[in-house]
Amino acid sequence: MAQKPSIPKGTRDFNPEQVAKRQYIFKTIQTVFETYGFQPIETPSFENSETLMGKYGDEGDRLIFKILNSGDYLSKVDEDLYAEKNSTKITSSISEKALRYDLTVPFARYVVQHQNEIEFPFKRYQMQPVWRADRPQKGRFREFNQCDADVVGSKSLWQEVEFVQLYDAVFTALKLEGVTIKINNRKILSGIAEVIGAKDKLIDFTVALDKLDKIGEEKVKEEMLGKGIPQSGIDKLQPLFTLSGTFEVQIQSLKSILSTSEEGLKGVEELEFINTGIETLGLKTAALQLDVTLARGLNYYTGAIFEVAAPDGVSMGSIGGGGRYDDLTGIFGLKDVSGVGISFGLDRIYLVLEELELFPEAVNKNVKVLFINFGDAEALYSLKAIQKLRAAGINAELYPDAAKMKKQMNHANKRAIPFVVLVGEEEVKSEVFTLKNMAEGTQDKLNFDALLDAVK
Amino acid sequence: MAQKPSIPKGTRDFNPEQVAKRQYIFKTIQTVFETYGFQPIETPSFENSETLMGKYGDEGDRLIFKILNSGDYLSKVDEDLYAEKNSTKITSSISEKALRYDLTVPFARYVVQHQNEIEFPFKRYQMQPVWRADRPQKGRFREFNQCDADVVGSKSLWQEVEFVQLYDAVFTALKLEGVTIKINNRKILSGIAEVIGAKDKLIDFTVALDKLDKIGEEKVKEEMLGKGIPQSGIDKLQPLFTLSGTFEVQIQSLKSILSTSEEGLKGVEELEFINTGIETLGLKTAALQLDVTLARGLNYYTGAIFEVAAPDGVSMGSIGGGGRYDDLTGIFGLKDVSGVGISFGLDRIYLVLEELELFPEAVNKNVKVLFINFGDAEALYSLKAIQKLRAAGINAELYPDAAKMKKQMNHANKRAIPFVVLVGEEEVKSEVFTLKNMAEGTQDKLNFDALLDAVK
Repeated sequence: MAQKPSIPKGTRDFNPEQVAKRQYIFKTIQTVFETYGFQPIETPSFENSETLMGKYGDEGDRLIFKILNSGDYLSKVDEDLYAEKNSTKITSSISEKALRYDLTVPFARYVVQHQNEIEFPFKRYQMQPVWRADRPQKGRFREFNQCDADVVGSKSLWQEVEFVQLYDAVFTALKLEGVTIKINNRKILSGIAEVIGAKDKLIDFTVALDKLDKIGEEKVKEEMLGKGIPQSGIDKLQPLFTLSGTFEVQIQSLKSILSTSEEGLKGVEELEFINTGIETLGLKTAALQLDVTLARGLNYYTGAIFEVAAPDGVSMGSIGGGGRYDDLTGIFGLKDVSGVGISFGLDRIYLVLEELELFPEAVNKNVKVLFINFGDAEALYSLKAIQKLRAAGINAELYPDAAKMKKQMNHANKRAIPFVVLVGEEEVKSEVFTLKNMAEGTQDKLNFDALLDAVK
Repeated sequence: MAQKPSIPKGTRDFNPEQVAKRQYIFKTIQTVFETYGFQPIETPSFENSETLMGKYGDEGDRLIFKILNSGDYLSKVDEDLYAEKNSTKITSSISEKALRYDLTVPFARYVVQHQNEIEFPFKRYQMQPVWRADRPQKGRFREFNQCDADVVGSKSLWQEVEFVQLYDAVFTALKLEGVTIKINNRKILSGIAEVIGAKDKLIDFTVALDKLDKIGEEKVKEEMLGKGIPQSGIDKLQPLFTLSGTFEVQIQSLKSILSTSEEGLKGVEELEFINTGIETLGLKTAALQLDVTLARGLNYYTGAIFEVAAPDGVSMGSIGGGGRYDDLTGIFGLKDVSGVGISFGLDRIYLVLEELELFPEAVNKNVKVLFINFGDAEALYSLKAIQKLRAAGINAELYPDAAKMKKQMNHANKRAIPFVVLVGEEEVKSEVFTLKNMAEGTQDKLNFDALLDAVK
């Protein structure tokens, strides 16, 4: 094979530095998840196709990676079906498993399958890869990781309060200060649609409203008119386009806009509860902001809707999102299990931390001490010291070959190893170590205890 | 959907306790890998099919999970080929990607693809799932994790010495004392085949020899005869069947058996080097044992061969293995890159630790403190304390609903939460917390600082 090997488009290799940085983010999120009482589960990479198909809409079904059955899979395909040569129709006959598309549906499946072992309310987190046959582009991959935390089995709004705190805790721990946690409520959107006389056009209405930031007030109104929302309704919306002030002030405006909608007022009340809680408890570095244009995953969420925006000045889509869904497990036959959850966008958080240079310097668990190899006797003497350094938790290694000194020093340089130990015949005889500090260029003869102190 | 959902055979859901135990093993191995100077890489879950196919033999090719192409994949299949309806022939036309089958071939691909960015010798570790369409059975899954450490780019035998130390360090850290690290050398097997005049029958010979423990000396000899190995050769083997004594004594016997084989003597010399190093450096809890019947992965290894056996009394196959392979990357066009590596069998190690009850009690990062919810005012007061506990690294949570006291206490019991805090109207007024120690059944009224001390 003369050609250099490659990997499928939309997938990535991660080198040691990248893995270390990703693990740093995972570990930070995981630690916060655990202090908040979430516990980890893991589900298989592939599920039975019927578990996934039909759960993400037609587009989702197309983007799910299907796994070919093993063995003589064609022998089980009906002759007439085969003769049609129709990819869509034949798929379910030659593929019965598919790769996980997100973590939510497998979680719902898990809850239903294990309902008798689970003690509700159940707070779980899950950090695993998912796969989507999407067209790859900048920041969009065919294999990427999701980090989700959800609670199922309680409708308490304290959970929404805690999720806002949790977002704040994670981004504070990552030193990513100044993120905005946007919040909305599906009931407010429904209430508005009701008030403006477009209850049946909720989706058209929110799709248009969602574009307010991008296309501006006039174009949004045009789009609404085009979708058949009456001018009188749009007029009633006017206060919405200029909603401003503190969270509490906006709440009061919404109360007046929605005064005739029971559902809308319920949504406002929920938002107010969450905001009051957060006002009292305080946030460390994030800000909570009401965003009545927020409508992500509309068909799915039934209460609170969350989205997290990177700090001002960083151009990046949302770095987290989530919300309340009142019937997560209904698709698998378990009714009336309310859930609320949030997700972290690992790849985008990575890019933001990179851009703002927020990764800790020591994130890469690089080797700290390299022992130069001058031959077998010296190597064995060195390995005795290395053994003790490792037992003290210090990443240390011996250059495996008695190569030229220059080659070995170059190796230490290229790998940015901070300390090099030189052990020649003389050092072995006098039981010392020559320690070279690569950054400072200094060199000292030390006994083992002094060496350990120096590299610690 | 009335039927309870399920997962594909050979795959597993992991509940919080299982995930915590698995993470404990991963984390222990990872920490040791890093102190030994290994650095992590990750590769995509699926590779281009041509990267994997043909690398694991015909049986391996069959066991690789193939991913169906997206879109109208049948439209690209040639009419004549389609008409044949032959699964084997059609696969490469409808599937161009496949799930990782092990970590070694993707690593070889990685090294070749990134050879210009890599500083050799390159010490990498990798802990990721792999997939095999094997018939599932006890302890054999279709999705399982591998944990590999390899060095490429040096032929130094010090690396073999360090891998023996590394096995010892990991199993000592896991408190799994008394494992046996078996070692052999491919060159010794070749040497023996040469000496007994069956050089062309190396594989038949080692396959038979490998069964010595299971079927006994006589049957092994019968099998060798049956495979055309001459009686005179088998006679020369006699000392091999009764090889015993210390490592050093066995080495001396081998030297005499192999006195006429240059390759065999080279193998003995390598073993002796490794054993001398280990004798000098010492092992903490494991034992190194020469096992001349060890022949795993024969077509692959060219020098040292390792296998780790669980402590006596635990019936379990090998819990680790590895060896030296002199041409890992040749399959991808990069010649003369020697590698040596080892692997840990996570699932089997898990079962052994479970059987011997070696998992630490605190492995499950369970919630430590549950605050009973008596209503919104009390809940808010509780959340202020919970916030401070979490900041101190203590896993704490509020029961989300103001449910009946009994229900909330049952919840704490079922989840084995060690501390429960009761905050009623009175506690809020006097700014105290009633702490109940669930194991001891004791109850105390404490201020926050005393509460923090008590649950720490």
